[in-house]
Amino acid sequence: MSVTAAQGFTAAGIAAGIKANGNPDLALVVNNGPRLAVAGVFTSNRVKAAPVHWSEQVLRGATVSAVVLNSGGANACTGPKGFQDTHATAEKVAEALNGHGGEVNAGEVAVASTGLIGVLLPMDKLLPGIDTAVAALSADGGEAAAIAIKTTDTVHKTATVSQAGWTVGGMAKGAGMLAPGLATMLVVLTTDADVDSATLDKALRAATRTTFDRVDSDGCMSTNDTVLLLASGASGQVPAYEAFAEAVRTVCDDLARQLIGDAEGASKDIRIEVIGAATEEDAVEVGRSIARNNLLKCAIHGEDPNWGRVLSAIGTTKAAFDPDRLNVAINDVWVCKNGSVGESRDLVSMKGREVRITADLSTGSESAVIWANDLTAEYVHENSAYSS
Amino acid sequence: MSVTAAQGFTAAGIAAGIKANGNPDLALVVNNGPRLAVAGVFTSNRVKAAPVHWSEQVLRGATVSAVVLNSGGANACTGPKGFQDTHATAEKVAEALNGHGGEVNAGEVAVASTGLIGVLLPMDKLLPGIDTAVAALSADGGEAAAIAIKTTDTVHKTATVSQAGWTVGGMAKGAGMLAPGLATMLVVLTTDADVDSATLDKALRAATRTTFDRVDSDGCMSTNDTVLLLASGASGQVPAYEAFAEAVRTVCDDLARQLIGDAEGASKDIRIEVIGAATEEDAVEVGRSIARNNLLKCAIHGEDPNWGRVLSAIGTTKAAFDPDRLNVAINDVWVCKNGSVGESRDLVSMKGREVRITADLSTGSESAVIWANDLTAEYVHENSAYSS
Repeated sequence: MSVTAAQGFTAAGIAAGIKANGNPDLALVVNNGPRLAVAGVFTSNRVKAAPVHWSEQVLRGATVSAVVLNSGGANACTGPKGFQDTHATAEKVAEALNGHGGEVNAGEVAVASTGLIGVLLPMDKLLPGIDTAVAALSADGGEAAAIAIKTTDTVHKTATVSQAGWTVGGMAKGAGMLAPGLATMLVVLTTDADVDSATLDKALRAATRTTFDRVDSDGCMSTNDTVLLLASGASGQVPAYEAFAEAVRTVCDDLARQLIGDAEGASKDIRIEVIGAATEEDAVEVGRSIARNNLLKCAIHGEDPNWGRVLSAIGTTKAAFDPDRLNVAINDVWVCKNGSVGESRDLVSMKGREVRITADLSTGSESAVIWANDLTAEYVHENSAYSS
Repeated sequence: MSVTAAQGFTAAGIAAGIKANGNPDLALVVNNGPRLAVAGVFTSNRVKAAPVHWSEQVLRGATVSAVVLNSGGANACTGPKGFQDTHATAEKVAEALNGHGGEVNAGEVAVASTGLIGVLLPMDKLLPGIDTAVAALSADGGEAAAIAIKTTDTVHKTATVSQAGWTVGGMAKGAGMLAPGLATMLVVLTTDADVDSATLDKALRAATRTTFDRVDSDGCMSTNDTVLLLASGASGQVPAYEAFAEAVRTVCDDLARQLIGDAEGASKDIRIEVIGAATEEDAVEVGRSIARNNLLKCAIHGEDPNWGRVLSAIGTTKAAFDPDRLNVAINDVWVCKNGSVGESRDLVSMKGREVRITADLSTGSESAVIWANDLTAEYVHENSAYSS
C-alpha cells in the first residue's frame, strides 16, 4: 500500500522517458491535507545534489504539499543549471496540480532524484511527464510510485503499520544509509495521523538513527539520500507520541531491512551486533568498521567464518576495549574468546542468507546493530558497468 | 639483490613445512656487523600479532642481530601460547646462530609473521626449519629470503639503491600499508652505511610516511605489518643524512609501487593526486577517501571515467573545500570543472594498467599522492576462499 496507505494522500508512478529503456521513472506523492506537516533527513555528504539543496530549503517552511521523485538521473554535480532544473520541476508540479484544482506553491514541493551523477536531466521529457503523473494521481497510486523510483533495485519496497484509526506507510529505493549510503536511498513516508512538523521531525530522527543510519551496504555515501515523512491529519486521530514514534520506527526498520535484502549483487545479509561496549557510539563505530571490511565481506561471501578479519576490523577503531578480552561469535558459535581461538570454526554453518556476527567488547553494557552485505563478483560487475 | 645487496648481511629462505603446499615459508636475515643498528615501524592496528609485540620490545634495545620471518601463519589472536611461540622462535634463532660461532641474544632477534589469523604456528616444523635456514645463510641469500615471505604475492619484491661506497637494499611481501594495509606487509631493508639507530629511525619514518603509508589497496589494516631497517656499517661509509634518507625513500617507494602492482586480483593501479589542498593532511584524507570508495574502484575496473563517484568520496571528508570549486581529471582530462560537468568523458582512455586521478580542491597549495587498486571479481574470489 506504500505511501497511499494513509488517508489524505494520492500518488502516481509513470514513465516519462528519462530512462532510455522506457521503464517507469517519475513518481509523485501529493498530500491533500487537511494538514501539510513534514519532516526530512538528508545525506550528510558535503557534495549534495541540486534536489537535496532545494528540498532542504522547502522543509524550512515546514509545509509540503507534494513530493516529486525521478529515477534515471541524480541531478548531482550539475552546477547552476541543475539547480534551475530542480526549481523548474517544482514550479511545474505546482502549476499542474493547480490546474487540477489545487492551491500549491512551488516552495511546498520537495524534489528527489536518483541515478547517474554529473548528467543534466532531460527536462524536455521530465516536465511533460509531470502532467502525465498529475493526471494519473490516485488513492491507489502508492505501488506505482514505489516502482517508478527503482534504479538497480530488483524489487520495489513498501511497508505499512496501522494502529487504532491511523496509519504510517512508506516506500523506499536503493540500498544504503544516510551517512554513508550505497547508491541513493530515497524514502517517502506518509501518515494520516494528526501530527505537527516538530513531532514528525522528532519521531523521524529517532527512527532513522537506529534504522537507515545503521545499514551499511558498501560504505559509500550518496549525494542524494533523502527521507521524508508527510502527515495529512486526514484520520483525525492524534496518537500518543510513543505509539506514533514506534510506528514510524517499525516502518523504517522494515524498509531498511528490505534495502539490505536487495543490495547490489549481495548473496548474504550480515547482522552485526556489538555488545559489551562502553558507549553506544563505540558500538556503532565498531559495527561500522566490521561492516566495511572488504576482506571480511569476501570471507562471508565464501561462507568462511574468518573471525580474524573481525578482530582486525575492531583493532582499527578508537573504541574502548582490551584486545585480550574480545569475544566474537559467528552464527552463535563463539569462535574467538579472549582475543584468541575459541570454539571450533567447523561448528559454524553459513549456508543461510542471513549471517549473524556478535562482537563482545567486554567493556560496558551498551550495544548496537548494524546491517551489511557481503562483497561479491556481481557487485563488482554491476558497479563497473553502471554508467557505460 | 634484496637484503644482501648491502655488505655485512647474510640471508636464507627455505621451506620448513609451515605451508601445507611445501613452498618456501621461512626467511632469515642476519646482520654480521660491525654495527647492529635498527629502526622499525609497525601496524597501527590495536589488535597486534604476537611477533609485532615481540619485535616492538626488541627494538627498544636499538640492537638487532637477526630477523626471522615466516609465511603460512600470522600468529595473531593466538593468546599467551602465540607469544610464547614467538619468544621460542627468537631463542632458537639465537641458539642456532651461536652454534655457528655467533654471539647473539634472543632479545636482539626480531620476528615477523604473515598468513591466517587465529591459528597457532606448527612449532614442530618451524623450529627445525631455523637450523636449516642458519645452515643455508649466505651473502647471496637475499633472493631466497624474499621468495620465502610470499603469501598471495604472485612475484617476490626487491629493490636496491647504491651510492658512492654504500647501499640500501630491501625485500617486501603483501600489498598494503601500515595504516591501513591489505593482507600483511612485511618489509626488511638493509644498509651497509655506518648509521646509528636514531638516524635510521628518522630516515625510515620519513620514508614510510610518504610511501607505504600512502598505498591503500583495500583499506584493510593488518595485525602484522612490519617494516625494519638494519644497518651493518660494513662499508665504513658515513653518508650525509639527506643522501641516505633519499636512498631509503627511493627503495621504499620502489617496493611500495611493486606491492600495488601485485595487489590481490587487481587489474588497474590507480594514482590519486590531490592538489590545491589547504594542508597535506587534507590532501591525504581526501586521497584515502577516494582510494577506498568501492563504487569508484569498480568503475575504474570497468574503465568507466565515473567522476561523480570521486566527488561523492570527497564529500565525505572533513577537508577544506567548496563543492562548487572542485575539479577532477582522469588521465589528464578535466571531466569535472567547478563541481560540475567539464570536458567530455569520451575523451578519457582508460585502457592502460595505470589510471591517474587528479582532484583539485582549489583551496590551497598542498598536495599528496595515494596509490590504490581497482576492485575486481578476482579480488572477491581470492579473499572468499583464502582460509578454506
